[in-house]
Amino acid sequence: MRTSTPTRRSFKIIRSSTKSRARLGRLRTTHGVVNTPAFQTIATRGSVRALELSALPELGAEILLANTYHLWLRPGLELIKKAGGLHKFIGWTGPILTDSGGFQVFSLARLRTISDEGVRFQDDVSGQTHLLTPEESMRIQSVLGSDIAMAFDECPASDSPRPVVELAVRRTTAWAERCLKTKRPKGQLLFGIVQGGVFLDLRKSHARELRDLPFDGYAIGGLAVGEPPAVMLKVLKAVVPELPEESIHYLMGVGPPDQIVEAVRRGIDLFDCVIPTRNARHGLLYVWSNKTLTGKFWSTIRIGNSEFGNDLKPIDRTCDCPTCRTTTRAYLKHLFATEDPLAQRLASIHNVRFYQQLMERIRQGIRTGKF
Amino acid sequence: MRTSTPTRRSFKIIRSSTKSRARLGRLRTTHGVVNTPAFQTIATRGSVRALELSALPELGAEILLANTYHLWLRPGLELIKKAGGLHKFIGWTGPILTDSGGFQVFSLARLRTISDEGVRFQDDVSGQTHLLTPEESMRIQSVLGSDIAMAFDECPASDSPRPVVELAVRRTTAWAERCLKTKRPKGQLLFGIVQGGVFLDLRKSHARELRDLPFDGYAIGGLAVGEPPAVMLKVLKAVVPELPEESIHYLMGVGPPDQIVEAVRRGIDLFDCVIPTRNARHGLLYVWSNKTLTGKFWSTIRIGNSEFGNDLKPIDRTCDCPTCRTTTRAYLKHLFATEDPLAQRLASIHNVRFYQQLMERIRQGIRTGKF
Repeated sequence: MRTSTPTRRSFKIIRSSTKSRARLGRLRTTHGVVNTPAFQTIATRGSVRALELSALPELGAEILLANTYHLWLRPGLELIKKAGGLHKFIGWTGPILTDSGGFQVFSLARLRTISDEGVRFQDDVSGQTHLLTPEESMRIQSVLGSDIAMAFDECPASDSPRPVVELAVRRTTAWAERCLKTKRPKGQLLFGIVQGGVFLDLRKSHARELRDLPFDGYAIGGLAVGEPPAVMLKVLKAVVPELPEESIHYLMGVGPPDQIVEAVRRGIDLFDCVIPTRNARHGLLYVWSNKTLTGKFWSTIRIGNSEFGNDLKPIDRTCDCPTCRTTTRAYLKHLFATEDPLAQRLASIHNVRFYQQLMERIRQGIRTGKF
Repeated sequence: MRTSTPTRRSFKIIRSSTKSRARLGRLRTTHGVVNTPAFQTIATRGSVRALELSALPELGAEILLANTYHLWLRPGLELIKKAGGLHKFIGWTGPILTDSGGFQVFSLARLRTISDEGVRFQDDVSGQTHLLTPEESMRIQSVLGSDIAMAFDECPASDSPRPVVELAVRRTTAWAERCLKTKRPKGQLLFGIVQGGVFLDLRKSHARELRDLPFDGYAIGGLAVGEPPAVMLKVLKAVVPELPEESIHYLMGVGPPDQIVEAVRRGIDLFDCVIPTRNARHGLLYVWSNKTLTGKFWSTIRIGNSEFGNDLKPIDRTCDCPTCRTTTRAYLKHLFATEDPLAQRLASIHNVRFYQQLMERIRQGIRTGKF
């Protein structure tokens, strides 16, 4: 039983590029607007590791991605319900997207048994056995109270043979229909997920199946799981034209700055990836080579390298983030060398801001017709 | 060769208690005023671990303590000199006190050889052999450019027999005179350190020796190194009356809130201790039992305990710190459970603020004649 009529009007395209499939858009959610193309900051367990959520607006980050699977297992739904939902539990007033747990069940859980009903698995925290179904995933996301819920999908390994992928696609469609039938909190958007591995015909036919279902947006899952970037871009080129043009298009789990640029050109509006924050925590920092978003426009530096031990410049001279405004490479290297957790925070601030600068430049490029 | 006439006018007593030896004072340094009784926040290696220095003023923290020994070995003086001194290297515009390295040489270094010249030791970072002398300690503190330098002292183990302590006292006096003869940067204050273990007569005679030397302040070292708190307070009662009354009195390395209160009553103006920040990083958080500073006025909670897993209250309902304003015990416990470095930051914010609240209450107590 659905509680509200699906509407694609949550997403509005402000400008479409004449040079590519890139679009400038606005996604309206219960907790605010997201300007697209947008990059979601990862808050798997309800926090951006090492970085307080209150720092995000200044960095340009408008939306968080939190994880159904992880939050369900720890700290558990009872506490989050008692707190009044995920926003209140973590102290974030902006939009949150929750993934469905599908990807994690397939990538993390042990002793999985997949059936049409759902996935039975042993969790990696307590060792207990759980059953995650489309209905249960929707119930969890309902308790979390995210602005955007994701349909529960089957995400096969990147090297799966065609019959395995075919079965996963069939099941993902059946599960998508069950997700749509499950009651949701008022205003919660629901996005469907296209699977199909690297088989272009399966990708296209799955997109056509899902576009007839009343989702508020469409994601492309099962990419950036090991296939070459060129293959990923080929899949996007095939699948995006099969999605409703007026809907938001979300490429899950991507990725490096140049892949984001290329995906935007192929019609993608929404991204997420753990790399800016995970890399930051390991001292790998993004720097601009140029601002054109063409050629090799970015690179990374490994702040622990000896060359930075005497370097009193900021991470990136052109960056406006609080870390670059106040901290030298040499001091940051010193903080990493002394294993001060502050190092991870300062590095995360920079990488989060780098990615938001990237998205701002992409949006500006579309706005001014240069992209 | 001294570059400036010693002056005790860097410290001004605003009000003396009629009920105890407690004093309300102001210490003027090149980088600003410190209201006393004051508690220094520890920034051993030039950072308050997990916590950005820019957060400190809002928490009421006016002065940092950094460590000659650690900064000398890593990142080294060349870099700090190139950066323009420690303040510029770490990005802190307030007062900094540097300890002399004496305590660390005696507690951390390996293969020590003590002579009248100084201490030869192998460092715990690179394994190299170094010689730390009073002159070298002063030279390092000169390059660091701290507002307050500490004289290089010999700090014997707490259970040392009387002859060992007697020798340490004699050497500390000789080294104090050599420190005073070493050139210092303009405006840098120099504090002498009273040793003497738990032998009251040695403590008194050493205080009398040092008070005739032109120090800007007097510290009591070699306490809180294992002796019972009652013994420490007995030493304070004996030694503080022997120090120049108009000078600042600094008790090094202390301590728990009730010991700070008792030490203030015995005439101490300045403190430092690693426990608020170290405990924070291990999830041990200070809470107020009452605001009277009498009886059992404080306690701690171990946030990892299961009882807090469902507790949506702040760490301390009466606390005004950013963590207590925005974070519940349950969320903080969740962050510790998921090993998010943000947990250490949020906990450090609270404990740093707790200690500054303690000092504010002590100062208010003296100001209003209740202390």
